[in-house]
Amino acid sequence: MSRAYNFFAGPATLPLEVLEEAQKNLTDYKDYGYSIMEASHRGEAYDAVHTEAIANVKELLNLSDDYAVLFMTGGASTQFPLVPMNLRGEGQVADYTKTGGWAAKAIKEAKILGPTNVIADTSEEKPARMPRPDELQVSENSAYLHITANETVSGTQWKTFPETKSPLVADMSSEMLSRPIDVNQFGLIYAGAQKNLGPSGVTLVIVRKDLAERVSADVPTIMRYSTHIAKNSLFNTPPSFPIYMLMLVTRWVKEKGGVEAMEQINQAKAQKLYDIIDGTDFYNGTAAVEDRSIMNVTWRLPNEELEAKFVAEAAKNNMVGLKGHRSVGGIRASIYNSFPPEGIDALVDFMKNFEAENG
Amino acid sequence: MSRAYNFFAGPATLPLEVLEEAQKNLTDYKDYGYSIMEASHRGEAYDAVHTEAIANVKELLNLSDDYAVLFMTGGASTQFPLVPMNLRGEGQVADYTKTGGWAAKAIKEAKILGPTNVIADTSEEKPARMPRPDELQVSENSAYLHITANETVSGTQWKTFPETKSPLVADMSSEMLSRPIDVNQFGLIYAGAQKNLGPSGVTLVIVRKDLAERVSADVPTIMRYSTHIAKNSLFNTPPSFPIYMLMLVTRWVKEKGGVEAMEQINQAKAQKLYDIIDGTDFYNGTAAVEDRSIMNVTWRLPNEELEAKFVAEAAKNNMVGLKGHRSVGGIRASIYNSFPPEGIDALVDFMKNFEAENG
Repeated sequence: MSRAYNFFAGPATLPLEVLEEAQKNLTDYKDYGYSIMEASHRGEAYDAVHTEAIANVKELLNLSDDYAVLFMTGGASTQFPLVPMNLRGEGQVADYTKTGGWAAKAIKEAKILGPTNVIADTSEEKPARMPRPDELQVSENSAYLHITANETVSGTQWKTFPETKSPLVADMSSEMLSRPIDVNQFGLIYAGAQKNLGPSGVTLVIVRKDLAERVSADVPTIMRYSTHIAKNSLFNTPPSFPIYMLMLVTRWVKEKGGVEAMEQINQAKAQKLYDIIDGTDFYNGTAAVEDRSIMNVTWRLPNEELEAKFVAEAAKNNMVGLKGHRSVGGIRASIYNSFPPEGIDALVDFMKNFEAENG
Repeated sequence: MSRAYNFFAGPATLPLEVLEEAQKNLTDYKDYGYSIMEASHRGEAYDAVHTEAIANVKELLNLSDDYAVLFMTGGASTQFPLVPMNLRGEGQVADYTKTGGWAAKAIKEAKILGPTNVIADTSEEKPARMPRPDELQVSENSAYLHITANETVSGTQWKTFPETKSPLVADMSSEMLSRPIDVNQFGLIYAGAQKNLGPSGVTLVIVRKDLAERVSADVPTIMRYSTHIAKNSLFNTPPSFPIYMLMLVTRWVKEKGGVEAMEQINQAKAQKLYDIIDGTDFYNGTAAVEDRSIMNVTWRLPNEELEAKFVAEAAKNNMVGLKGHRSVGGIRASIYNSFPPEGIDALVDFMKNFEAENG
């Protein structure tokens, strides 16, 4: 078996030891006589998985009892409408920052459903950047302020989260558990699992319980956060195998030293790539230096032919998924928690050689 | 490794050969160098899985191009509101049959969202039964008639589907691909995967494309069937591993001879249990004979103590998940497509012995 260095933006690489643990148990989970995929979601085998997954998230984020940990489905794209359906009360406005493609999608759904203000828009700026906290002024009757913590496409990331008088809501799909955060700053955080938390198919939601009570009675039962809080994410059959993988990944993060250790490792990984980008005119970063993401590193080469050649030759050297998002082109290295540091060294060597041959 | 006979109602048993295939490829899918869980949903490895999964469903159900095959998330419980949101037009009424607990949940969500008629209610009858087609009269301005094809809790199943002037919508979660059906009778069919199709985490939806155009512009993008039709279920990141498993399971059904072969095997499996139930006063079936499900076989013992003893002793004999649904009690054997015939023989032997010792 030869594992590739997998730079996909998500679904993304997972720790090999996590995959091996799942593999070992795939036909007979811990001598129960069935796979965890085949276990009743109301039975003992799955219950232990579910409980540990929630406990791991609570511990890693140092959550108080004011917050609930929920496992939902449908990814961030489903949270885009659920957030305004649940949190925007009668007569309130939903505030958004427009910082790129993912923020734009969230805004589109909020507008379909009701009053929405875009209070800062950096989405067309080059280099790509995030708003400064002091550029933000929420609406008078603001229900919440929504931000996209890390823009996967442009490779930008909020370094300091805004402090606002209305609850802060964050799409953290592409940076969840990658660095310490103070959850008490947030009203709601959501993250599709397929970048930092596990495979696709489960969405982690962390919500302040009192905010979940705002929902009106005409919202369908399964679309209310309050339903999932009341039923501990077992209102209906959960996506049990993706949650099992999330449990194993969060256990792995704990074993590695938690989110503080992750941040150090992630910073070091990203810095190696930014160092080579900054040290040459051949590679050009596309994000403003002060807003550079430690999850998605984006850059251009002198022309698109060279970019295509770069991606193709990298793949031949066992490094896959380096093509930039189809909406912006260029190169993107997605280097989430589970991406191994050795893979960064391999990419750095490749970049040096590629420049030497093509620069 | 010792595999149990798994009678769970869902998530449920899967074919061992399917699990072994997934296990073999779990850290390195077909020499790509990554797991299918780690594959980009826009890349070649996953694309082949997605395409085969859709093709298998189309072939097994003999679908015409009038229908789309969609992979969604959130289970049947999410389809409960999505069906009226998409298919009930202005001034129309949604018709429902109330045949048990699952139908009741679908009705509850339809009522939250708009005008809903329950045109037949057998939910309180004992023995449990389904309405006869001639008992049904849809509303004058009916948007659709919703039925629950198989009631997992009570163990009843529609043997003949009603022919109506408004489109027929069916929750087939617990019987999908278990018998031949004429899809042309239906406007929309949905099924959580975790009974007959794979693990939990993906919902199969089959929808007549023209009906999906009814949706109004104020429905969020991801909640419209038309969105998923236009994007071939790749509007956002799909639950790729559950879809991979569904692909393997549908491939297995094809290899076994398709839905015609499944029906024969399922009939034979169920009949062995109904024969022993009918041949004694110790075991009493709870569903009307003519509506008995071939997926969920339900019965009672003389008292609850004996039922608890039955479940406990069966578990000691490697047969798990036989406890009836918490809302009704008793015994339930869920014997979906993947449940092996040998497990039925083992249960029959156990039932005979248990009656001899306790009858």
